[in-house]
Amino acid sequence: METLVAVIGASQCTPRETGVAEEVGRELARRGAVLVCGGLGGVMEAACRGASKVGGKTIGILPGNSPEDANPFVQFPIVTGMGYARNAIVVKSARAAIAIGGGYGTLSEIAHALQNHIPVVGLGTWELARNGREDTSIVPAATPQEAVERALELIRKGDEP
Amino acid sequence: METLVAVIGASQCTPRETGVAEEVGRELARRGAVLVCGGLGGVMEAACRGASKVGGKTIGILPGNSPEDANPFVQFPIVTGMGYARNAIVVKSARAAIAIGGGYGTLSEIAHALQNHIPVVGLGTWELARNGREDTSIVPAATPQEAVERALELIRKGDEP
Amino acid sequence: METLVAVIGASQCTPRETGVAEEVGRELARRGAVLVCGGLGGVMEAACRGASKVGGKTIGILPGNSPEDANPFVQFPIVTGMGYARNAIVVKSARAAIAIGGGYGTLSEIAHALQNHIPVVGLGTWELARNGREDTSIVPAATPQEAVERALELIRKGDEP
Amino acid sequence: METLVAVIGASQCTPRETGVAEEVGRELARRGAVLVCGGLGGVMEAACRGASKVGGKTIGILPGNSPEDANPFVQFPIVTGMGYARNAIVVKSARAAIAIGGGYGTLSEIAHALQNHIPVVGLGTWELARNGREDTSIVPAATPQEAVERALELIRKGDEP
Repeated sequence: METLVAVIGASQCTPRETGVAEEVGRELARRGAVLVCGGLGGVMEAACRGASKVGGKTIGILPGNSPEDANPFVQFPIVTGMGYARNAIVVKSARAAIAIGGGYGTLSEIAHALQNHIPVVGLGTWELARNGREDTSIVPAATPQEAVERALELIRKGDEP
Repeated sequence: METLVAVIGASQCTPRETGVAEEVGRELARRGAVLVCGGLGGVMEAACRGASKVGGKTIGILPGNSPEDANPFVQFPIVTGMGYARNAIVVKSARAAIAIGGGYGTLSEIAHALQNHIPVVGLGTWELARNGREDTSIVPAATPQEAVERALELIRKGDEP
Repeated sequence: METLVAVIGASQCTPRETGVAEEVGRELARRGAVLVCGGLGGVMEAACRGASKVGGKTIGILPGNSPEDANPFVQFPIVTGMGYARNAIVVKSARAAIAIGGGYGTLSEIAHALQNHIPVVGLGTWELARNGREDTSIVPAATPQEAVERALELIRKGDEP
Repeated sequence: METLVAVIGASQCTPRETGVAEEVGRELARRGAVLVCGGLGGVMEAACRGASKVGGKTIGILPGNSPEDANPFVQFPIVTGMGYARNAIVVKSARAAIAIGGGYGTLSEIAHALQNHIPVVGLGTWELARNGREDTSIVPAATPQEAVERALELIRKGDEP
């Protein structure tokens, strides 16, 4: 079975986030992980493009009803027709998630991941607190390489007996 | 058509949160709103109990496969069998959501609500920030009465042309 | 907890099916059952209209993203945003289902019901066979009154120890 | 983008169905299609085994909450946590579906496929009728090779302008 890692982020993003996402996708592919994402544009497309450029595999869990909705770098389109309720599937299919920037959709994915004990690495993403106390569950990373390194480390750690 | 308001919060909660949730449920029922929630224990059960005591109507959107999973104060059990992916349905069915305390499940509900432009009122719940900037989308309330008042106000405002 | 009975059928139907569905809705309401359906037009709307006319309660599990999609006789709109994947929820929320005519959506609801051991009563609906052998799981009824009678009987039977 | 073809059938099946499913999986892989299925045992496992033996790619859309639920021949596990509501996703992700034997779960997949205008080829599966009139939407095939040939033909036909 392949190891799936989710890249989560908004379908509209800044040029800087695009660059970061592409590098995360490339690095995941180089390290042999399969990229799973929401299959649309922005961060998702950039990550898929990065992975594709170095021969990586990409899965897009689409909210709509047609495989044609996928960005051009998705190899395996999964058509849910479930709208944003598909966000839970994106992260649950992954062994770890890397969040890049992001809007409320990304926040829902972070929340679904943490609820399912799937580690989340963050690159300039949401910061959480509850009743004035910071929640430090999102593991911060400074660079795409560090984010991928951390995510794969956390997966290995989860596999230990 | 009835006006549904979601009460979201964890299935395990503090006695203080239980009291708050029960009062929110009661106040919603008094004001004629129908309570929709995840149908289980903790905040959800307390809110349903509060609504039931004053003759209010309660809907529970259950994650499991049996109506028997519902707390005893749910009148209308909706059986999704979808696990936490049902969280999106809880908030989308509501015209506004009131968050009380809460874990990652509640955070996912807040995120799904905000993504769908459904107003969220908070009673001691998550605080959000992104890249060091606070996100002020969750409307804070100090008391159950204020939370219900705010939620109904936001619904009326959404109905204005 | 209320007893929910599903009425399943197409959003476009014949005048005869409309009449049958309205009578099924009325009879369910008279007998104290809550009607759950897909919330749209055709058979669903007719059944909701029938129930409403005699003061019955109606729940619509909607495929789209807005409570406004519901037919005018739905009191409690559940907004799934899941498209036809919501069909599984319609029948799982019910203790029994009554199928009236119907297209492939109705067929999927019948299948989800039977898979979940929820009895299905049919009024001019699908007939099933496998490898040349008839499947007799759908309980036939000749009139709306008989269909409701059979559905309530099957629920009582399921409640027996 | 890869062409996905669904193989649908029960998690418990006869030895004959196992042989047929394995051959369907092998033939799909030989012809370059990606196999998508529900990811569990029986027909699903046999089809994945057949595809794997000749280097084909396999996707399993799982009902539960863990990639570990997948049969050993699933390369890309998609974790939905949605129970049988995931059946809609299995067929919607495919350009065509091949049904082998099958229970009510398979019937729901056939119904979801036909509702979404996705062609279904049958190998000893359900036969449908409505009000005494046969529904001939399921394209019959006599052998695994014929089933795959028909499915790929129907996809090509769907691609024609």
